[in-house]
Amino acid sequence: MKLLLAVVQDKDANRLVEALADENFQSTKLSSTGGFLKEGNTTLIVGVNDDRVDPALEIIKKNCSQRDQMVAPISPMGGNADSYIPKPVKIEVGGATVFVLPVDSFFQF
Amino acid sequence: MKLLLAVVQDKDANRLVEALADENFQSTKLSSTGGFLKEGNTTLIVGVNDDRVDPALEIIKKNCSQRDQMVAPISPMGGNADSYIPKPVKIEVGGATVFVLPVDSFFQF
Amino acid sequence: MKLLLAVVQDKDANRLVEALADENFQSTKLSSTGGFLKEGNTTLIVGVNDDRVDPALEIIKKNCSQRDQMVAPISPMGGNADSYIPKPVKIEVGGATVFVLPVDSFFQF
Ligand code: NI
Ligand code: NI
Ligand code: NI
Repeated sequence: MKLLLAVVQDKDANRLVEALADENFQSTKLSSTGGFLKEGNTTLIVGVNDDRVDPALEIIKKNCSQRDQMVAPISPMGGNADSYIPKPVKIEVGGATVFVLPVDSFFQF
Repeated sequence: MKLLLAVVQDKDANRLVEALADENFQSTKLSSTGGFLKEGNTTLIVGVNDDRVDPALEIIKKNCSQRDQMVAPISPMGGNADSYIPKPVKIEVGGATVFVLPVDSFFQF
Repeated sequence: MKLLLAVVQDKDANRLVEALADENFQSTKLSSTGGFLKEGNTTLIVGVNDDRVDPALEIIKKNCSQRDQMVAPISPMGGNADSYIPKPVKIEVGGATVFVLPVDSFFQF
């Protein structure tokens, strides 16, 4: 058995938990901040049988990969609103850092 | 040395921490949600010498095992309260999911 | 690769995160309480290459070691304030508990 420790963005966390549950992967969310990703991340613990590590990683990759997102910039204050045409800005969102840890034994009570 | 990562229900967490401390097991609580157990769970980290893994697991089992609990159901609104006799309902509470992880080395500063 | 799980006091956590980042160690903070240290601690996750475990431990040791701190005691209520000379009291602050865990594999998406 392996323990996956996945640090993902808050905005991707719930979708990931549901996608994992759809394939019968149970996960626990730890509230976390900073570091590997920008503020507002979540650390997921997922217990996975050895032969299901790759499918679990695929689900994380699919739901949390770093990607570009176009966002409307904030209008400059005091500018001439009529002549100002805001240009969407591309930012990077998502991203996942995953540690696969060996597990000696596992118990459910 | 081993690191026990135990996901337990919030309602069992403090009793477990005290029961572990009574046997000189130090634990740290991480706030967590969802997944292995219903909402409102706690993930405990416990560092344990190899020869004390079983006693630690016994304490977790004793304090957090899944068990039935009888609860009074909510009275139906607008029903005839005089004739309504609420029947206690059996629900499952507790439960623990424990991962035993190998530890390469351990430091205290 | 190794995963360092470091339980440190809240008051030392941000300084530690910055000191680690200065040496290119990325860390994630998990909110935690009790156990290894007094209330108000933080658990840091740090992914570290095998040859950089010792430098990372040195940074933790340097920023979080247990040390004495002199604090002004609270004045006794109702006492004669004029004649009362508060004597600073020595308390222990800081401290770190670090588990070094083996990592099977590591991914970034
Ligand atoms: Ni295995
Ligand atoms: Ni050992
Ligand atoms: Ni390695």
